[in-house]
Parts: sequence; C-alpha cells; structure tokens
Amino acid sequence: MRGREGVDSRQNRPRAFSLGELAERVGGEVVGDPAIEIEGPGSLAGARAGQISHLSHAAYRDKLATTGASAVILRPDDLAGCPTNALVVANPYHAFARVSQLWDDPPPLNRGIHPSADVHPGASIHQAARIGPNVVVGPDTEVAPGVRVYANAVIGPRCRLDEDVRLMANATLYADVKLGARTVVHSNSVIGSDGFGYAPDANGRLEAIAQLGGVTVGRDVSIGSGTTIDRGAIDDTVIEDGVKIDNQVQIGHNCRVGAHSLICGCVGLVGSTTVGRHCVLAGMVGVGGDRPIDICDHVTVSGVTHVAGSITEPGTYAGGTIHDRMRPWKRNALRFQRLDELFKRVTRLERKIR
Amino acid sequence: MRGREGVDSRQNRPRAFSLGELAERVGGEVVGDPAIEIEGPGSLAGARAGQISHLSHAAYRDKLATTGASAVILRPDDLAGCPTNALVVANPYHAFARVSQLWDDPPPLNRGIHPSADVHPGASIHQAARIGPNVVVGPDTEVAPGVRVYANAVIGPRCRLDEDVRLMANATLYADVKLGARTVVHSNSVIGSDGFGYAPDANGRLEAIAQLGGVTVGRDVSIGSGTTIDRGAIDDTVIEDGVKIDNQVQIGHNCRVGAHSLICGCVGLVGSTTVGRHCVLAGMVGVGGDRPIDICDHVTVSGVTHVAGSITEPGTYAGGTIHDRMRPWKRNALRFQRLDELFKRVTRLERKIR
Amino acid sequence: MRGREGVDSRQNRPRAFSLGELAERVGGEVVGDPAIEIEGPGSLAGARAGQISHLSHAAYRDKLATTGASAVILRPDDLAGCPTNALVVANPYHAFARVSQLWDDPPPLNRGIHPSADVHPGASIHQAARIGPNVVVGPDTEVAPGVRVYANAVIGPRCRLDEDVRLMANATLYADVKLGARTVVHSNSVIGSDGFGYAPDANGRLEAIAQLGGVTVGRDVSIGSGTTIDRGAIDDTVIEDGVKIDNQVQIGHNCRVGAHSLICGCVGLVGSTTVGRHCVLAGMVGVGGDRPIDICDHVTVSGVTHVAGSITEPGTYAGGTIHDRMRPWKRNALRFQRLDELFKRVTRLERKIR
Repeated sequence: MRGREGVDSRQNRPRAFSLGELAERVGGEVVGDPAIEIEGPGSLAGARAGQISHLSHAAYRDKLATTGASAVILRPDDLAGCPTNALVVANPYHAFARVSQLWDDPPPLNRGIHPSADVHPGASIHQAARIGPNVVVGPDTEVAPGVRVYANAVIGPRCRLDEDVRLMANATLYADVKLGARTVVHSNSVIGSDGFGYAPDANGRLEAIAQLGGVTVGRDVSIGSGTTIDRGAIDDTVIEDGVKIDNQVQIGHNCRVGAHSLICGCVGLVGSTTVGRHCVLAGMVGVGGDRPIDICDHVTVSGVTHVAGSITEPGTYAGGTIHDRMRPWKRNALRFQRLDELFKRVTRLERKIR
Repeated sequence: MRGREGVDSRQNRPRAFSLGELAERVGGEVVGDPAIEIEGPGSLAGARAGQISHLSHAAYRDKLATTGASAVILRPDDLAGCPTNALVVANPYHAFARVSQLWDDPPPLNRGIHPSADVHPGASIHQAARIGPNVVVGPDTEVAPGVRVYANAVIGPRCRLDEDVRLMANATLYADVKLGARTVVHSNSVIGSDGFGYAPDANGRLEAIAQLGGVTVGRDVSIGSGTTIDRGAIDDTVIEDGVKIDNQVQIGHNCRVGAHSLICGCVGLVGSTTVGRHCVLAGMVGVGGDRPIDICDHVTVSGVTHVAGSITEPGTYAGGTIHDRMRPWKRNALRFQRLDELFKRVTRLERKIR
Repeated sequence: MRGREGVDSRQNRPRAFSLGELAERVGGEVVGDPAIEIEGPGSLAGARAGQISHLSHAAYRDKLATTGASAVILRPDDLAGCPTNALVVANPYHAFARVSQLWDDPPPLNRGIHPSADVHPGASIHQAARIGPNVVVGPDTEVAPGVRVYANAVIGPRCRLDEDVRLMANATLYADVKLGARTVVHSNSVIGSDGFGYAPDANGRLEAIAQLGGVTVGRDVSIGSGTTIDRGAIDDTVIEDGVKIDNQVQIGHNCRVGAHSLICGCVGLVGSTTVGRHCVLAGMVGVGGDRPIDICDHVTVSGVTHVAGSITEPGTYAGGTIHDRMRPWKRNALRFQRLDELFKRVTRLERKIR
C-alpha cells in the first residue's frame, strides 16, 4: 500500500492524498476539487481544513452545513446540502472506513528476529516476518511472511500464523492455535487455554477433563484486548473468516463463531455454543443454558441480554430490564418475584367477571 | 505417571494404553478385549478406531449404537446397547476425566532456570523446578520442586509456589501470594493486585485504603485465563482446595471461596463475599449488594443471575429474564417499570369484586 | 514520605509511628496516650495490640467495646464507648485511608533502567525513573522522574508517563497514551488498543474504521488489573483526574469518565459514553443503547444494572431482577414475556367493572 510505505520515507510529516486519489481507491465520484490534499479523517462536527469526513446517517445531516472538513463522503441525495468538496458513493460509511485505513499506523517493529526473542530451534520463522523483543516461540510453530509479533508475546508449540498476522504485545497463544492471514490479536488476549470441563466424584471433588483440541481462527479476524478463547476438548474451537471480536470477550471450548459476525465487548459464550454468520452480539450478551445453544445466521442480540436457549430465526432479540430510579426499581423487582401469582389472580378475576 | 514420561521417549507418536490398563487405573471392568490399544479420547459421535469415548448422560444414549470408538466407558445399565468394547464403571464421566488426563500435554519447559529469567538473589528456587524465559521472580519467594513457570510470567516478593504448581505464560503474581500443590494459573491472570477500597473526603476526592493482605490459594485449584483475584485489605483473600475458576472471573478483596466449588466464566464477586463448599456459580453471575454476601454450601446459581443478598439454604437459584424478540421485549420491559402499580390495580379490582 | 523511606533502612521490621504522629498527619485529636506505637492497621474485630482501627459506620459500633486495637479512629460521638486510645476526627474512614497508606509497600524496583529492558533510542527516560526487567519502551515516549515501570510491561510510541506513575507488571500501553502524575495502572491491563468500529459492505463483510486517536488519563487515577481502555477513533478517549477504575472494566473508544468517579469491577462502557464527575458505577453495570449515552454528575448506579439510555438527573439508579429459587424464578421469567398482555387484561377488567 502506497500510504503505508510513505510512513518510512516521510517520517513525521502526515501522509497526504489528493481527493481524486481517494475517489479512485473507493470507486466514488468527486464533486468539487479533485486536487485538494487530504491529510487525515475527521468527524463532521470536529474536522478542520485538510480532513475528510462522512455523512452516513440521517441523524448527522444537520452538521453538514457547518462542517470544517475539506471534503465529505456522502450519498448522492445529500450532495445538495454539502458546503465543501464531496466524494459521492453509495455506502459512505464503508468508503470512509477504507479511506481511514490509509492513515492506520501500527507500532514500528524491525524486520527479522529481535536478539532477545527466544525462538525454539524447531520453529520455522519466515525471514520476512518480524519478531519483537522478549517474544517466545515454541517448537513446530510456523510463522509466515509479513507476520508481526510484538514485544513479550508468547506463542506455544504447533501454532501457525499465516501471512500478515499481527500479534500485539503481551498476547499469549497456547499450543495448536492457527491464525489465518491478516488476523490481528490484541494485547493480553489468550487463545487456546484449557476449556473448563470437570467431572465430580462421589464426594464432589472435581477431576479435569483433559483439553486436547486447538483453536482455528480464520482470515481477517480481529480479536480485542483481554479476550480469551479456549481450546476445544477434542476438536478445535473455531472462529471463521472475517469475525470481529471486541475486548474482554470469553469464548468457551468447542464454540464456533460464523463468518463476518460481530462479537462486542464483554460477551460470554459458554462452551459448545455456535453462532451463525453475519450475527451481531452487542456488549455483555451472555449465551448459555441447560444445553448447547445454536444461534442461526443473521441474528442481532442487543446489549446485556441473556440468551438462554437456541435462536432459530433471523431477527433482533433483546432481554433484561431497563434502569430506573432505585426506589421504584426495588418495588418492581420485588413484585417480579410474585408475577406468576399475579397472572393467576387476574385469571381468577376474569372468571368471576365473565 | 507412565503416560507422561512416555511423551519424552516416543516424541511425536501418540501414547497408547491397553483397555485393560485403563480399567485398572480407574477401577472398572472390561467387557470385550482388554488388549485393544487406545490412543486417545473421542466423543461418542466423532470417535474413530483407537479412541475411547463415554456415555455419561441419557441424552446421548442414541449415539451409542453407531459410535466408531474402540471402547466406551459406561454404566452397567448401558452395556446391553454397546456395539464395541466397554469399560464398565459407576461414574463414567469421572472415569473418562481420569483417562483423558493420560493424554494431557502441557507445553514443554526445560528443567532449571532459563538464562534470560531474572530471579532475585533472595528468592529460593528448587533445582527440580522449571523457570522459563523472561520470567521475573521477586525476593523472599519460594518455588518448590516440580513447579513450572512459563515464559514472561512475573512473580512478586514473598510468594510461595508449592509442588507441581503451573504458572502459565504472562501470568502475574503480586506480593504475598501462596499457591498450594498442583494448582494451575492460566495465562494473563493476575493474583494479588490491590483491592478496590476508597474513602471520599468532604469534596468527593477519593483516598485509597492501603491493601496490605495477600492471597492464599489451596491445592488442586485451577484459575483460568484473564482472571483477577485481589489481595485482602488486611487479611488474605482465600481460595480453598480444589476450587475450579474459569476465565475472566473477578474476585474482590477478602473474598473466600469454599473447597471444591466451580466458578464459571465472567463471574464477579464483590469484595468480602464468601462462597461455600461445593457451590456452582454459572457464567456471568454477579454477586454483590448493600452489605457483604454469604452463600452457603451446596448452592448452584444459574447463568447471568444477580445474587443481591445472602443465600442461606442449599439449592438452585436463578435470576434475570430470558431473551425475546426485540419488540415484545421492549413492551414488556417498559411495563416492568410499572409492575408495582399493576399489583395495586389488581388488588383494587379484587376488593371491588369481593 | 517518611514511612516509605523507613522500609529501606529497617528492612523486615514493621514501620512504627506514634499515635501523636498519626494525629498530626490527619489533623485529629488524641484522647489517650499519644506516645503509643502503632505498627499497622487492623479491623475493629480482628486488630491486636500495636494496630490502629476505625469506627466509620454505625453498623460496627457494637464491635468497639471489645476491640483489641491499640487505637481507634472515630467521631467525637463515639468517644464515650471507646475502651482504648482514640484518634478523634470528623471523617474516620478518610483518616483511616490516609493512615493505612503509611504501610503501603509497592514491590521493590531498582533505580535506572534494567539491562534487559529494551528502550528505543528515541524515548526519553528521566534518570530518577525506574524501568524493570524486560520492559519495552517505544520511540518518542517520555518518562518522568519517580515513574516505576515493572517487569515485562510494554509501552508503545509517543506515550507520556508523568511524575510517580506506576505501571505494574505485564501491563500494556499502545501508542499515544498519556498518564497523569501518580496514576497507577495494574497488571495485564491494556490502554490504547484499537476501538471497535466496523462498516459492512453490501455483502456484510466488515471493514475496520482506522482508530487514530489516543488515550488521555488524568492525575491520581487508578486502573485495575485486566482492564481495557480503547484509543479514540479520531480524538482521545479521556479519563479525568482522580477516577478510580477496578479490575476487568472495559471502556470503549471516545468515552469520557469525569473526575473523581468510581467504576467498579466488570463494568462495560460502550464507545462514546460520557460519565459525569463524582459518579459511582457498581460492579457489572453495562452502559449502552441505541445511541451514545451521557450520565450526568453525581449519579450512582447499583450493581448488574443495564443503563440503556442517558441519565440527566443526579440520584441512585438500579435495574435487573433479584435472584430467586430456580422454580419460581422460571415461572416468573416466562410470565415476564407476557407482561404487556397482562396489563391489557387488567385494563379490560377495570373497564368492565367501572
């Protein structure tokens, strides 16, 4: 990518692109001056000269007239209200995402293996990979070209990191973890630790079921900071291509998350859950019940919902209650514990009246 | 253990055991060929020749007839339907757990102290312990024989790691943490960081209460990845023998978790909570209220429940609501905020009718 | 601080202070013997000779008569019932906090840069800072005097750590993170990783919005273990002065947390949330809804509450339900899904009766 190479040569000067270049890159049309130089993205309300912003949602339309941006990515319908140069596309948010990535700036890391890294002689590191300080790599692990492993990350035996994978500082991979091309694992995440399975004896003492599987992560996956994904008991835990997982998500052993799904912060999936393709689990959703849960494709679950059983139809789901003042909440929460009784009282009343 | 020694000599060949050997090990009876070689565990539905499976739950009984396993661990009652060799025991799940452990395969680690480790001269490391690369050990810490401390883990001052403890990569122990024999702490967990106690002044500025206690963890405890257990304010936070804690659990200062309890993923215990022996807190349970909470022995709490007060009788508890389609959920959640009023309306109706 | 210096010279002997010294330090009055030596804090019920305790809450008043403490910090009103030396103040809990800090004992760390640390030549480390083993520091990062960076922590490019900041073992800072004076970041926390923003294309494939902002953390902030705070998309995520954040808290990109607020364990804030000053979010509170949420100053939210919309008036808020026995809970939870219908049934009854 031209922009990224630019970072080495220009050092601390911001990278700049002409609006025309950006339009070509995202397949849009310039209305205004295609030669104007863009030095970075900005929000519609906060952008200043040299920045490009976007109008993707009707809720922000009133901010368009007064934007200080040098260009705005927008739909044809919004062109009339645009006070500055426009980059017209069908999907402004997606185009803005692609444009913004030109200024993405991963921390620097030298090519080759840092002298303080401890790489097992049985590991195979491509010479175009970058292995940072104090990184530890176990036997029989393969690291492809373009991979970046940042400081103090640890990789166990028999792992495979495909092209351009990024493993950020202090992340940990146990044994038998495969990461597909371009996948990113953020700091202090742990992939492949033992699943949670115990069998009690007659006295309630707990004996561990050995966890012998691995974790297979597809291509273009992102895994946030402080997230944990356990290895399977026998087969692998699987995260399919294009899945995006936020921070502090917990994924139990033998789960499968379908391609292009979004798993937001603090979600927990109990072991053996399957989530379909193109799903969205919003923040703090908890999935788990009496038996393994399957969520079908194209399901959206809103935040802080307990998914207690399988979902077999696409759509939007929710649960829980909404915050309230402490006092009325307490009265209502106590009444909740007698809700079944209330239903029966109403039924009795209805009978009497009939 | 014979099986584990085997790993060094046989290298990449799977360890194998005769079914007769396994039966002896778990005190069961072979029905079929005791000489058949077993090379690993498998699920009833997925096992192939050379694998051993188990039938522990009636729900899986229909999978028995078509299993590809070379042997199945089961109860006498299920023997009639078994199409292959059987290992008959009273508690198949427990026997399967013990058998599966023969193939457990902790990451390799060389004996002795890795040259890159930084061990304080005032620490005492037994020569039969294994200290991995970039491990840091503080003063006055004692490490017993058989202990394995994996790469980049950090151990503070005045800790004690008893026989065969395993501290996985990137885990952190603060000062004054004691881990009993055979206890495992998974990666990126933190034990002994400061409890959360603050006193406001007249202007609402918060002054920290110094946290001066430690953490005492018993024997045979397992602590998952990304879990945090705070040190006590004055006395120690205590985790008793045989407790199993999953990933991303948060245990506040001065908690005590009773022996042989299971704490599942994402559970949070507010400071000074006590959990009894043989309890099960399922995923995302939150324990905390106006005052310190005590949960007695033999309590099971199902997932995503808020335990807002003490539980004084054994049994199974639950809370929260169940997921629903977004639209009906929203209507019901708004009605919840007027539930107390509804009770009063029904009471008035009842009076009128009487 | 005198007490802290004492640790070096006296080694393993406890530091001691006369009660008179303590009174001077917190601006209180001694009733009893000001010369008595105090060697540490204790709880009212558990303290022994040489320890100082406090009576801050009426609930503990019955423990005063039998305390074994050598001194008790209390209000004038409670003086009559005190069987030992008293330190009389207006705010005993706050005075106890300040006194307890005299025995605070951060893990030892040598002055200067440990030889195993990897500090970029473009970083600037003050000679009165302490950089521990295997620490990695990126280019253009500035570290002020008195800063302590413990073992295996990693600091990205362009960070700034002001006077007396403590970064504990295995913590990770990405690029562009500023930490104000005296701020503490506990182990395995991650500050500055990428915010979670994705734009779908027409086929539901997710394209990342580049995250280009940083994180600005004020002075006297505490950030617990395993906590994650994402960098802003364009502007910084901001944590103001004096905020105290517990373990395993997740703070999304572009959030702002107001000065002197308390964020307890396992709280999650979706991106672009603002929390006011002097707020308290108790454990496992989840904040997130259809649009960005603002919580005004002086709001307290009790544990395990879902804040689904903005809060514009100070006060105490709550949500969720309370645990119950499994069977009645299940009946009630199923009824909840027909609550709106019940309201309508009651309304019909009321009409009929009128």
